[in-house]
Amino acid sequence: MRLSKSLIPTLKETPAEAQIASHRLMLRAGMIRQMASGIYAWLPTGTRVLSKIAQIVREEQDAAGAQEVLMPTVQSADLWRESGRYDAYGKEMLRIMDRHERELLFGPTNEEMITAIMRDSIKSYRELPQIPYQIQWKFRDEVRPRFGVLRGREFLMKDAYSFDLDRDGAVVSYKKMMLAYMRTFQRIGITAIPMRADTGQIGGDLSHEFHVLAPTGESGVFYDAAFEAGDAMTATDIDAFYEQMTTIYAATDEKHDTAAWDKIPAERKREGRGIEVGQIFYFGIKYSQAMNFAVTGADGQKFFPEMGSYGIGVSRLVGAIIEARHDEAGIIWPDAIAPFKAAILNLRQGDATTDALCEKIYASFGNDALYDDREERAGAKFAEADLMGHPWQIIIGPRGAANGMVELKRRATGERFELPVKDALAKVGA
Amino acid sequence: MRLSKSLIPTLKETPAEAQIASHRLMLRAGMIRQMASGIYAWLPTGTRVLSKIAQIVREEQDAAGAQEVLMPTVQSADLWRESGRYDAYGKEMLRIMDRHERELLFGPTNEEMITAIMRDSIKSYRELPQIPYQIQWKFRDEVRPRFGVLRGREFLMKDAYSFDLDRDGAVVSYKKMMLAYMRTFQRIGITAIPMRADTGQIGGDLSHEFHVLAPTGESGVFYDAAFEAGDAMTATDIDAFYEQMTTIYAATDEKHDTAAWDKIPAERKREGRGIEVGQIFYFGIKYSQAMNFAVTGADGQKFFPEMGSYGIGVSRLVGAIIEARHDEAGIIWPDAIAPFKAAILNLRQGDATTDALCEKIYASFGNDALYDDREERAGAKFAEADLMGHPWQIIIGPRGAANGMVELKRRATGERFELPVKDALAKVGA
Repeated sequence: MRLSKSLIPTLKETPAEAQIASHRLMLRAGMIRQMASGIYAWLPTGTRVLSKIAQIVREEQDAAGAQEVLMPTVQSADLWRESGRYDAYGKEMLRIMDRHERELLFGPTNEEMITAIMRDSIKSYRELPQIPYQIQWKFRDEVRPRFGVLRGREFLMKDAYSFDLDRDGAVVSYKKMMLAYMRTFQRIGITAIPMRADTGQIGGDLSHEFHVLAPTGESGVFYDAAFEAGDAMTATDIDAFYEQMTTIYAATDEKHDTAAWDKIPAERKREGRGIEVGQIFYFGIKYSQAMNFAVTGADGQKFFPEMGSYGIGVSRLVGAIIEARHDEAGIIWPDAIAPFKAAILNLRQGDATTDALCEKIYASFGNDALYDDREERAGAKFAEADLMGHPWQIIIGPRGAANGMVELKRRATGERFELPVKDALAKVGA
Repeated sequence: MRLSKSLIPTLKETPAEAQIASHRLMLRAGMIRQMASGIYAWLPTGTRVLSKIAQIVREEQDAAGAQEVLMPTVQSADLWRESGRYDAYGKEMLRIMDRHERELLFGPTNEEMITAIMRDSIKSYRELPQIPYQIQWKFRDEVRPRFGVLRGREFLMKDAYSFDLDRDGAVVSYKKMMLAYMRTFQRIGITAIPMRADTGQIGGDLSHEFHVLAPTGESGVFYDAAFEAGDAMTATDIDAFYEQMTTIYAATDEKHDTAAWDKIPAERKREGRGIEVGQIFYFGIKYSQAMNFAVTGADGQKFFPEMGSYGIGVSRLVGAIIEARHDEAGIIWPDAIAPFKAAILNLRQGDATTDALCEKIYASFGNDALYDDREERAGAKFAEADLMGHPWQIIIGPRGAANGMVELKRRATGERFELPVKDALAKVGA
């Protein structure tokens, strides 16, 4: 993408309404704009990050055997009356009346709808287990939306639902989803830790939250150093993996167990703050029973499938990743989800040799580089590239261009390399 | 995907509420389920088709230089008051009140919102032209939703908006989008014809609709045979392309010009029916002026950018394609957007040799085949494969399996081939 013709409205000033780094940086880097309280438009760089995260989430859900579906955002109130949650959900639910005065709502979550779909579709135990999932917009009418996409009203969520024959099967699905989550976060390039959690409004008796470590996190977290750098993900089978995840110490301050904590060697104790980016639940037959979703078993008897649900806040992750990875100058994207692999900074726009080399390098990236082709001074280009957080900057001036040399800068470390074009492209992976 | 563990709830009976083929077949093939009047959930095969169409649309928008964004589904009523359309839009707009009694709505289209975003982002003529686009859910509260996804209330739409310096530039953007549309339809594998259209509620003075030919189409269409098989897309530059598209005869019955029609040689005259799947508009400064989006020109003077908007009904296309491509037995998917490249039909589930060969073939497809591994009789498997419309069926019985032979069936033509496994896979392109 050519920056001169791009919809990337960076800001020099810090917007007054933004209280935390990710909100400030997403606005300043031109990733999002607020359209109404807690409701954001995602501009091209924001959309690219969101799509890359969604694609990693999708691939790991598929790899776990889940099947992608797409449920509508607008739901019928009657569905929620079946589970009893229509009245219980309160003001966070955005209620809508259509032209025929039928009661609708913008879905905040989809346990009821997916149970209704399965009830209509699945008749025999032979068709289980199944894990349908979707990546779809949700709405929660927060009383006080804030922190940008971290606590917005309209947000993109991956929600999966498991349906099993029995409790043992449901626990296997739960473990599979926990593994899919940990792989997802690992591929994205962030440390996220599963922590035992309360089940809250969803209900049930087993739940874990996944927290991304960031100094601005909403919860205090206590954890064993084994969770750092994926050390805890060495298990070779799913049961051993789950055993590791649930026995190595990790807890939010709400659930902190000082007796267990005291047994951990001091050099392995870590304290920090976490941002919740996902939660998984096992809740048995709560919804299948309330909504009368019964299936015929091998013995000819009807039974209610055992269910779980599994959420990842896809748009929230964007904010959480920035909270975990930024500095004074701006965002520091992990390679896997950066909007572009690299920024190409032309330091002498209009100089024929420099322009020609920039164009040649730009062409070698397909659409995966941002070419700063504006007539701007070098300082402004450096500052914007740092702000936007591209993993690599390829810096091209007239002197280097004449000799076929460019400068590479690695955003995360600040390292710089003076290299022939071919070597630079190889290093960036163009 | 293994059919035995899939969420593909095919129906033997024809649902009473479905009046037309695509609605009937989408329900019977287990692609969708209605969740409320005109509101559908997309099950795995439906979701796969929708995603493949969306991806082709996206690639052609990107190739035309458009930039993907994602606007929220929920908008502020105030935005629509700026253009004067809030009151004008009528009951088709789904109006919403939030917990603080602020007036919101579920966006039926996004001219206002994108103009507000551009007004906030673009200050200089140097940053133009730009074409932001999104693929996002919309809602129109149709008084009588029907025909399944062809006239639903919540639907997936690609909407693009062009912003140019002047009328000439806007016409170039218009031509580029027309070319992107024709390439999109060609890649999907359907014939769609651009027809001069009225501008209706959007406004403006230039518009074309794109109609997919299908016997159940809502409009009568008259066209020159040159539009068949892409014969009209031979131009080598965009002006010549646009000239061809707008001079070769094509019109809906509303705009039919019998004088012009009479001049076409009889052997090139075609009459049929069409389903509208896209529409493009050039409407000048209607919205930029009403919403005071002014940009500084090269002469230092402010001016209102010239705009156009460009829609493709992505979910509607699924229905339109089925209307154009089905027979008594079911759907006939074009290869490019079929949910799966092939179905693998195991005619003797439980026979070790047959099972082993099926598994081997299934593995060679990655996730792009549907393996019918159910204990069902052959007739039921054939009927479901025909119904779902996979481009190829790979039919494997015990006799063939013992000799490494399979039968291939091409859904579109009914052709059958008895081939060694390797040759069969090569033919299907696994």
